[in-house]
Amino acid sequence: MCIFCQIINNKIPSFKVYENDKILAILDIQPVNAGHTIVMSKKHYPNIEEAGEDDLTAIILAIKKIGHLLKNKLGVAGYNVTANNDPVAGQIIPHLHFHVIPRREGDGLKLWPTFGYGPGEREKILKKLLS
Amino acid sequence: MCIFCQIINNKIPSFKVYENDKILAILDIQPVNAGHTIVMSKKHYPNIEEAGEDDLTAIILAIKKIGHLLKNKLGVAGYNVTANNDPVAGQIIPHLHFHVIPRREGDGLKLWPTFGYGPGEREKILKKLLS
Repeated sequence: MCIFCQIINNKIPSFKVYENDKILAILDIQPVNAGHTIVMSKKHYPNIEEAGEDDLTAIILAIKKIGHLLKNKLGVAGYNVTANNDPVAGQIIPHLHFHVIPRREGDGLKLWPTFGYGPGEREKILKKLLS
Repeated sequence: MCIFCQIINNKIPSFKVYENDKILAILDIQPVNAGHTIVMSKKHYPNIEEAGEDDLTAIILAIKKIGHLLKNKLGVAGYNVTANNDPVAGQIIPHLHFHVIPRREGDGLKLWPTFGYGPGEREKILKKLLS
């Protein structure tokens, strides 16, 4: 059984931040910053594309609740919400989950670098996406 | 008027990937990887905590659609979903939006480093969150 399913079924202990009938939110055991919370669906889906609409809705509403908690209880000024969808994107546990990562001034975390498209490249990508 | 509101109102041109009554998805002009898409609510909210539940739901369902598009049309094996919520988290445009970033093997992008909590630290954080 997947490790998150075991946590959901209380076979493995966890630090529960929030729970409802569709969602479990727990402290990440290996956080980026203190308070880093994982929001998972109780139903097992490997990733976002496979997930049911009702469970995705429950996840985003739970993320909003966790955001309020982090601001109100930990006093953080903001946070990042991330999902690493599939192994190429860094997903380790193939069970639908999002990270909510509290941010603090001077914590040194940097967003990924960006670039500018060359002439015609954006048009080409858009054409593929709309094909 | 905020730059995303101007894009939504067609005052500024954009490369539209997907649109419905609540959502606009466009190619990011400064992508992390080619095909990097921004999913925004048409209604203006500064961040996730301020956003209405119906618009958050519409965003997560649109993210699922974009994920399918990136995989099916661009052939990517996965993607990251991110929201930089508030300036401390890297939010530049204060209008609710998520990034969907296609990932490719060997693209060199790294997730943020993590650490282990010291003795009692996790308990202390959880106590604050549940207070």
